[in-house]
Amino acid sequence: MDEEGSLSLIVFSGTDDKLTSAAILAIGAAAMGRKVNLFLQYWGLDAFRTDRITSSHGAAPEAGATGTKLIAEHTAKAHWSEMLRQAKDIGTVKIAACAKSMELFQIGKDDLDPLVDEVEGVATFIADATGPITFI
Amino acid sequence: MDEEGSLSLIVFSGTDDKLTSAAILAIGAAAMGRKVNLFLQYWGLDAFRTDRITSSHGAAPEAGATGTKLIAEHTAKAHWSEMLRQAKDIGTVKIAACAKSMELFQIGKDDLDPLVDEVEGVATFIADATGPITFI
Amino acid sequence: MDEEGSLSLIVFSGTDDKLTSAAILAIGAAAMGRKVNLFLQYWGLDAFRTDRITSSHGAAPEAGATGTKLIAEHTAKAHWSEMLRQAKDIGTVKIAACAKSMELFQIGKDDLDPLVDEVEGVATFIADATGPITFI
Repeated sequence: MDEEGSLSLIVFSGTDDKLTSAAILAIGAAAMGRKVNLFLQYWGLDAFRTDRITSSHGAAPEAGATGTKLIAEHTAKAHWSEMLRQAKDIGTVKIAACAKSMELFQIGKDDLDPLVDEVEGVATFIADATGPITFI
Repeated sequence: MDEEGSLSLIVFSGTDDKLTSAAILAIGAAAMGRKVNLFLQYWGLDAFRTDRITSSHGAAPEAGATGTKLIAEHTAKAHWSEMLRQAKDIGTVKIAACAKSMELFQIGKDDLDPLVDEVEGVATFIADATGPITFI
Repeated sequence: MDEEGSLSLIVFSGTDDKLTSAAILAIGAAAMGRKVNLFLQYWGLDAFRTDRITSSHGAAPEAGATGTKLIAEHTAKAHWSEMLRQAKDIGTVKIAACAKSMELFQIGKDDLDPLVDEVEGVATFIADATGPITFI
């Protein structure tokens, strides 16, 4: 088990479709016994602010109006933040905020949803990456 | 050969430039003797519908008008679906549709181009991932 | 050291936020003793042209007007091209341009910033990938 190493997800994008995709991957990898490390950067980090985590975050540009509506309806029923809570229940899932992105947005740990376990630098994230590094 | 493991590509994006990039990677990895597993999600899956696979799917937003035109011309000459067929001829390349995304779009296997081998869940995709997991 | 293999970054996107994220990753991996190979494709390659490398390249669509302004200010203070130069000083970092993308844009090695070490095909890039392959 965990022979293939951890799954390291860089969550850069902040749209609901990509955040849901990240959560699905985290659940799948946790279910297969792999350690999962999420590293929140830029718009992905911005989406985890307590005051906006459940707000609508739109979809990738190619979704168009119909696709964006579909994602909004789906997100309302099964929110990616709930899926990440499930992933944490299933396996070993750590969610860290990128220290440099925190500085960029001038926010602190208290501004983020309790799903976020800690603030860390990129070197620590890389040091923990014993398997794929997937940028979303 | 294949010491570095399989190459697992999550094809999330549905624009012609990113789909072509995925096809180039699949060909390169197949040529190097690596097993390739594609997992079609969201707009990437949508692009594989039989009724629209050869339609124009645009380009990433930063392409602008000039770049989008360039991609359209290039895609007309060398379509990513043809490149994926070549990749399958060269090596072991499986194309699976994400079961959850099929549900989201309320489509069945019959709605998809024959390039798609099967419908599978994320746990199966992760279980087969013995190397990089690349999100496009 | 370097037990987890090299870090292979496909730099497809050409916005300043994603290019900065690629540079941060390169620095982090180089600092941890991992070999880093960047492969410039499409809009990522376009951003390395000598005549526009320091021009503004915008941000991901979800940045909005406020986010785009923030990225522009940050990029002016700490440019990703400078960060990539630092990464090269810290460790073993190779930057290659994708031969197919060069053809697409009809440009030559002389059109690119000296940061770019060479032009290579995808098979060579894959052959050198002994660890994660991360698409940005």
